[in-house]
Amino acid sequence: MDLTTVLGLLLGLAGLIGGYMWDGGHVNSLIIPSAMLIVFGGTFGAVAVSFPGSILAKIPKALGIAFMQVKRDPATTINEIVDMASVARREGVLALEQRAQEHENPFLKDGLLMVVDGTDPELTRQILELEMDAIEHQVNNMSKVFEAGGGYAPTMGIIGTVMGLIHVLGNLEDPSSLGPAIAVAFTATLYGVMSANLVYLPIANKIKVRGKEMVNEMELMLEGILALQAGENPQLIKKKLNSFLHDKSKKAVEEDDVNGEAR
Amino acid sequence: MDLTTVLGLLLGLAGLIGGYMWDGGHVNSLIIPSAMLIVFGGTFGAVAVSFPGSILAKIPKALGIAFMQVKRDPATTINEIVDMASVARREGVLALEQRAQEHENPFLKDGLLMVVDGTDPELTRQILELEMDAIEHQVNNMSKVFEAGGGYAPTMGIIGTVMGLIHVLGNLEDPSSLGPAIAVAFTATLYGVMSANLVYLPIANKIKVRGKEMVNEMELMLEGILALQAGENPQLIKKKLNSFLHDKSKKAVEEDDVNGEAR
Amino acid sequence: MDLTTVLGLLLGLAGLIGGYMWDGGHVNSLIIPSAMLIVFGGTFGAVAVSFPGSILAKIPKALGIAFMQVKRDPATTINEIVDMASVARREGVLALEQRAQEHENPFLKDGLLMVVDGTDPELTRQILELEMDAIEHQVNNMSKVFEAGGGYAPTMGIIGTVMGLIHVLGNLEDPSSLGPAIAVAFTATLYGVMSANLVYLPIANKIKVRGKEMVNEMELMLEGILALQAGENPQLIKKKLNSFLHDKSKKAVEEDDVNGEAR
Amino acid sequence: MDLTTVLGLLLGLAGLIGGYMWDGGHVNSLIIPSAMLIVFGGTFGAVAVSFPGSILAKIPKALGIAFMQVKRDPATTINEIVDMASVARREGVLALEQRAQEHENPFLKDGLLMVVDGTDPELTRQILELEMDAIEHQVNNMSKVFEAGGGYAPTMGIIGTVMGLIHVLGNLEDPSSLGPAIAVAFTATLYGVMSANLVYLPIANKIKVRGKEMVNEMELMLEGILALQAGENPQLIKKKLNSFLHDKSKKAVEEDDVNGEAR
Amino acid sequence: MDLTTVLGLLLGLAGLIGGYMWDGGHVNSLIIPSAMLIVFGGTFGAVAVSFPGSILAKIPKALGIAFMQVKRDPATTINEIVDMASVARREGVLALEQRAQEHENPFLKDGLLMVVDGTDPELTRQILELEMDAIEHQVNNMSKVFEAGGGYAPTMGIIGTVMGLIHVLGNLEDPSSLGPAIAVAFTATLYGVMSANLVYLPIANKIKVRGKEMVNEMELMLEGILALQAGENPQLIKKKLNSFLHDKSKKAVEEDDVNGEAR
Repeated sequence: MDLTTVLGLLLGLAGLIGGYMWDGGHVNSLIIPSAMLIVFGGTFGAVAVSFPGSILAKIPKALGIAFMQVKRDPATTINEIVDMASVARREGVLALEQRAQEHENPFLKDGLLMVVDGTDPELTRQILELEMDAIEHQVNNMSKVFEAGGGYAPTMGIIGTVMGLIHVLGNLEDPSSLGPAIAVAFTATLYGVMSANLVYLPIANKIKVRGKEMVNEMELMLEGILALQAGENPQLIKKKLNSFLHDKSKKAVEEDDVNGEAR
Repeated sequence: MDLTTVLGLLLGLAGLIGGYMWDGGHVNSLIIPSAMLIVFGGTFGAVAVSFPGSILAKIPKALGIAFMQVKRDPATTINEIVDMASVARREGVLALEQRAQEHENPFLKDGLLMVVDGTDPELTRQILELEMDAIEHQVNNMSKVFEAGGGYAPTMGIIGTVMGLIHVLGNLEDPSSLGPAIAVAFTATLYGVMSANLVYLPIANKIKVRGKEMVNEMELMLEGILALQAGENPQLIKKKLNSFLHDKSKKAVEEDDVNGEAR
Repeated sequence: MDLTTVLGLLLGLAGLIGGYMWDGGHVNSLIIPSAMLIVFGGTFGAVAVSFPGSILAKIPKALGIAFMQVKRDPATTINEIVDMASVARREGVLALEQRAQEHENPFLKDGLLMVVDGTDPELTRQILELEMDAIEHQVNNMSKVFEAGGGYAPTMGIIGTVMGLIHVLGNLEDPSSLGPAIAVAFTATLYGVMSANLVYLPIANKIKVRGKEMVNEMELMLEGILALQAGENPQLIKKKLNSFLHDKSKKAVEEDDVNGEAR
Repeated sequence: MDLTTVLGLLLGLAGLIGGYMWDGGHVNSLIIPSAMLIVFGGTFGAVAVSFPGSILAKIPKALGIAFMQVKRDPATTINEIVDMASVARREGVLALEQRAQEHENPFLKDGLLMVVDGTDPELTRQILELEMDAIEHQVNNMSKVFEAGGGYAPTMGIIGTVMGLIHVLGNLEDPSSLGPAIAVAFTATLYGVMSANLVYLPIANKIKVRGKEMVNEMELMLEGILALQAGENPQLIKKKLNSFLHDKSKKAVEEDDVNGEAR
Repeated sequence: MDLTTVLGLLLGLAGLIGGYMWDGGHVNSLIIPSAMLIVFGGTFGAVAVSFPGSILAKIPKALGIAFMQVKRDPATTINEIVDMASVARREGVLALEQRAQEHENPFLKDGLLMVVDGTDPELTRQILELEMDAIEHQVNNMSKVFEAGGGYAPTMGIIGTVMGLIHVLGNLEDPSSLGPAIAVAFTATLYGVMSANLVYLPIANKIKVRGKEMVNEMELMLEGILALQAGENPQLIKKKLNSFLHDKSKKAVEEDDVNGEAR
């Protein structure tokens, strides 16, 4: 579970609804099905036109990235690569086959298997970089779907409000109903701005940030795999991979260093 | 037929009109010919000034890209290239002449014919990259025409509404007609925002995404053609081209791999 | 004459004014000299502050680019370069001196004369690329002047309307004059949005697109001149330059190919 | 203490509140807890969804960068590096070990220690550049958190105002309360625009500028460390590093030059 | 004096004020000190928070760049460099020492002195490029300060107007004073939009354009200095530097060419 996504959404919603109720507003008057149909239907339609089905089909996966936190531990990955580099130096890369086969990370597994297979280093780099590009491209597309939603939703809200005003102003028989009717028209704007700024745009950003984390991790793995294949000194590999990190996680590796050195 | 374009448009329109009617609005009161003339005429004029005739003439082709889905199957393309690479290795590139001549994809055909003709690899790459650039440039231009429409339309809507308000406020003899007159003025805003956000901008984005798919496919073909010309190992070619893909389509190639290996 | 610029302007204006009159509006009430002074004076002042005199002095030339269509025919240019390459191969580059001297295109003339003079190929490329950069830079500046106008004009319109409202609201002696006075105030917004979206921004875009066409043509010429200087095979030159084109113009060259081959 | 941050905030606040009170406004009527809950709760929620916890946890550190001014003195750094380069030339890099160990700047310390350890120059550059990238990346993320806040806050203000208007317009029993109720609704807009433009966006910019200063300083150190490792002439090093500076600080180095030369 | 800056400001102001007075408005009613305090105080505060003191301290220098026109004459510079290249070829670079020492342009002086000192060409290029980068960076920062002002000012105007409306709507005892009070509130918007679009943004752009001119001139000088140091043929140097220019200034050099050739 990605805590900041869930708590952020709850907290934001609590702030908005709480403030409204504090002033004496009734939640009922914020629920206007016709405005919902206009804003959410219109936004979904515009997003669907904007992207091909193959990208739209990844919306559930994109939500998964935004709401589920994959535990990423670069310090452990570094120690593991350094350890494998030691093994490869002592016993040759073939000794890593078993370990590569069973590795849970598909990118690291792919790379190690290519090393074990004796693939040309340049080709290994090329293939792994293409895989990285493909994933980066895919995550960017997911993020863009939500960004598009965040762009269309407020305009759909404006459309809903303008349509409501057109309806109201065109039928001014009963002036006393003018106020409530305008209030109803405004809910469309509310839905549009709220869904865009509390849901679509923040989720688009979260997906983008998570995508960068994935790519950073893959870059670290790529450097490690290539250094391992080149038979570099494990301590130099650790030093180099270490520079990819920063802050707390870096310290974790350094503390771990004592054990690492002892291996 | 590009389903998401057509269904998205219908769904978006259904949401907007449906929500309006749910509130008791009459569709008639949304149809104001003078506002249409202002918004669509103004938008078309501004777009026409913005681009030369040679780009405007491609609007029908651009609509074709947005509404017609070309069946793209990179897995099949990869298998085909790998197969041709095997043939070229066994029997020489001349054996591909017939197959190249008859190939339906103009880019792959051009490239293969250059290989068969014994064109210098560097020149082959240069010419194919220039072709790719030309197509990318052309699709980008088409996308920009619709983006421009999506930029001008809401401002034309504002112009229509302001002109309506000027007319109304300048002639306040009959105050009772003020409401309906303002309602009419607002329809221009409605047309502008709606056409931009449900039609022009989403279609511009769909064209851009489709253009990227085309370019990706051409990059894959280019790599394949050059690898084939260089006489690389077909299994390595498959491995390399495979990294261009991702997800489902990748799996398709891998399943197909059994047959591919058997060839 | 650049037809799309002229017709687009007329059509856009016709749509806006036509729609206004259809609703019963009088064109007279759209002509408010004080609002014109505010919007056009303010916009011109802001643009003048934004750019040095040397760039402002090119506004007439920029309008020339937007309104006059230079007949560009890349297919003819390619055939001509290929023909000159054949001559240069048979009789040496000196045989091109006369033809270079008389060539109407200053860029091609400059390049050919350098070839005839036996200038070092690297220096030829360097000088021609600097010339290309200078022209690209100059056209971009022209486009930016109109873009700036398109950015300032709507804000000047808002300034005019706000000043009108300040005047009206500060002197509410005669409430019956409130409506017409607000109508007058709105004309400033109308001028600002209209001039920006029908004139300044579209013209800025047209200039930018025309500038890209110029640069593309110069790139084609540059490649041709360098290939000619290197004594490359004329048929290869044609093949390479051909890839710069696309679509109809490409076909034109291919049809012309029959004659070209026969030369 | 970063004076411009603190004084800028005080001055901006003084201007806004002062102007309001000058017109006879009471500060009390600007304090509406429900609007605060909506704007600050909503903004915080949206920001929390947008970023992972690891980035949000750095908000205090980011505020530290914006409010505390680290005394940076590139002239002193240059003189120190030049001095160490002289020592290294005379007595070898090992003579710098003590000084490197005790250096307070972690980046310079890391670099010098690698030089003392005899690390390969290419690896030294690679590791230090990765460290620079990591810090740049980290500071950019901090800046983006505040930028996101500056983007969401005004829209939360609009949400608060629209919710206020919906509440007011839906309950028009007492028309005399309409004015004050709308006034209350407007405070949400006020909070949103004010927090964004006086706090979030300016602080985001300050962090970005400070981050660039840090990176510039590290680039200078990197060049110095590599030049020192390569055993370059100390006077040439000074000349080269000097070009990184400009203006006043440059003069400071030049005046210091007399002593520097004498060493 | 930079004429377009001064005349543009006067003309813009004349247009705005003239149009206002034409409609019968009194300039007095545009002068509201409390609104000025809000808009200018708020903008200055936000800008101060956004930048460190070292950049804010350069505001006077930035205004100098925007209002004072440095006479730049690239044709003269080219002829001078070509002349010095002739001297260097005949008598050696040492013959230029006197001339370098006395040169008024600090960049050209620095470069020539390095040439006279026999500095390594690669180092000369590196140091001069670092100086160019430093100046470019500095001018960009100046431009960004005014851009930031142009971004904050309209929002401070909105803040002022919203605060005015809160004050007015919260105290509706005397409805007849509502109009004038709203008029006063609007002046804040007027100040914000006007200062941004007539002063801050245009000046930011002028500084940016002037900065590019400076950098272009320095690039030309850099090429000239390096060519001179390499002992290239003076006529080739002139040809190369010439391509940096365009239009009128180019013609000037060509006319001057007759004398140049004769030297």
